[in-house]
Amino acid sequence: MALPASVRVVEVGPRDGLQNEPGDIIPTETKVSLVHQLADAGLSHIEAASFVSPKWVPQMGDAAAVMAGINKQPGVFYAALTPNLRGAESAIETGKVDEMAVFTAASEAFTHKNINCTIAESLERFTPIMELAQQHGIRVRGYVSTVVGCPYAGDIHPLQVAAVARELIDRGCYEVSLGDTIGVGTPHRVKAMLEAVSKEVPMEKLAAHFHDTYGQALANLYAVVEEGLAVIDSSVAGLGGCPYANGASGNVATEDVVYMLHGLGIETGIDLAKLVNTSHWITDQLGRGNGSKVALAMGCGDN
Amino acid sequence: MALPASVRVVEVGPRDGLQNEPGDIIPTETKVSLVHQLADAGLSHIEAASFVSPKWVPQMGDAAAVMAGINKQPGVFYAALTPNLRGAESAIETGKVDEMAVFTAASEAFTHKNINCTIAESLERFTPIMELAQQHGIRVRGYVSTVVGCPYAGDIHPLQVAAVARELIDRGCYEVSLGDTIGVGTPHRVKAMLEAVSKEVPMEKLAAHFHDTYGQALANLYAVVEEGLAVIDSSVAGLGGCPYANGASGNVATEDVVYMLHGLGIETGIDLAKLVNTSHWITDQLGRGNGSKVALAMGCGDN
Repeated sequence: MALPASVRVVEVGPRDGLQNEPGDIIPTETKVSLVHQLADAGLSHIEAASFVSPKWVPQMGDAAAVMAGINKQPGVFYAALTPNLRGAESAIETGKVDEMAVFTAASEAFTHKNINCTIAESLERFTPIMELAQQHGIRVRGYVSTVVGCPYAGDIHPLQVAAVARELIDRGCYEVSLGDTIGVGTPHRVKAMLEAVSKEVPMEKLAAHFHDTYGQALANLYAVVEEGLAVIDSSVAGLGGCPYANGASGNVATEDVVYMLHGLGIETGIDLAKLVNTSHWITDQLGRGNGSKVALAMGCGDN
Repeated sequence: MALPASVRVVEVGPRDGLQNEPGDIIPTETKVSLVHQLADAGLSHIEAASFVSPKWVPQMGDAAAVMAGINKQPGVFYAALTPNLRGAESAIETGKVDEMAVFTAASEAFTHKNINCTIAESLERFTPIMELAQQHGIRVRGYVSTVVGCPYAGDIHPLQVAAVARELIDRGCYEVSLGDTIGVGTPHRVKAMLEAVSKEVPMEKLAAHFHDTYGQALANLYAVVEEGLAVIDSSVAGLGGCPYANGASGNVATEDVVYMLHGLGIETGIDLAKLVNTSHWITDQLGRGNGSKVALAMGCGDN
């Protein structure tokens, strides 16, 4: 396969990243500023908030305020995670959400433990959300977790992923993001998974959401981009994964992804220097280390 | 190209890793124990010391004592860096060194700044070392630095790397290790470099020594392994690169390389669990963070 000429990078830092940050609730204005800076750096697709019960995810309790604070830029899509109908209603009420996201998994054990239902039940729950989205002309993205391995069930068969991805498309999702949630994939395994899925869902409707728990994310992304996949989820500064403490896990850093894509001659529309500035700014705000090697390398001017 | 069935991992942590560690001189017995543990974990090729002037690299001042302390295991090759004839003589005097290593670069600016000579002069300096090695039946490995980019000269042309690699083989090196010293490579660039070099030197005499400064090392290693390269240099716990502070740079972590290779179905002979134990042990000894994501992930039992 030829490499895609361009890749759309979906920035999940403000949502998938920040919701996994330990410590104090991050001020709303910090979250809003992060979204603004990301758009300014050329990110055209930003997952900005999660409309989930603050009981479950206190860090996302100000989702409506975050959306209200965003000064939307033309050409940028602002997305929100909406795990249930109530969340979807709240997201739509803001009048600022271009896209909603729903999630399920390729592992029955994972949906059972995480959202207390079967995969089929999780898909059923999407029906009213899809209807509401359609009424408001808002597109819906589907996430599938544990596409390679599951912390409870072990290896996941590619055909299982393909079936769930197909269901999400059939139910109206415009795109399916394939999540290696625990980061256990290696290049040939993710290629085999993608091959199976792309027989059920066209490649242009698929995204890779690979975690870097075992350091494999970039190698895996290179492998799937070689297969023609052209949408990648990532998180500025690797937010959501701890860069050095025990228990490190989480999102691959956007800067590192962009560096690789640009090195491969693939366009992203992203200004890497601006993105690195944003990366240092947000890690300063959070008082945490930076999970992006590119940010560390460019930040200290060592080459 | 088919993937190689097996890859030889060359562990450079005790030398290239430790010599770049800041802080106090590490006790000789710690270095010796590290080498022993690595051999026990299945590493068959360990660069154990550098016979360089302690004025330049104080951390390697006990090279002879380290070699003397090593209880050699059958089937394991113990290598030492010997930047000059005096170092080579000292290495041979220990009676424990199976292999010596010499280094030059693909960039004139780099050899000029680092070893104050031209590339041609650096190659001339190897002549007496090669002769001495031959007299003692010791093989010599050649390192080429800056095979993709140079901090002083920028991009390096693949043909320049090919010419230097060829010279090293012609002068008697049994293997040439190609170093992306500042870690600026991306998959297609390292593939183009390898393609040029492998026209001058057979693939089975080439090794990849890729630094992870920009987080690209594993993706690049995957790319060259796909081309049939079957020798990889790496450093346990990513020793030699700081895992989180500014100025991060340095070796890719052996654990992360091994995880990828095993995931690809490639044999290494390495016991990953034992290696991870060694990784935690040495970072505890050094009081530093762990630069291997696999070590962090496996260490905390999160999957």
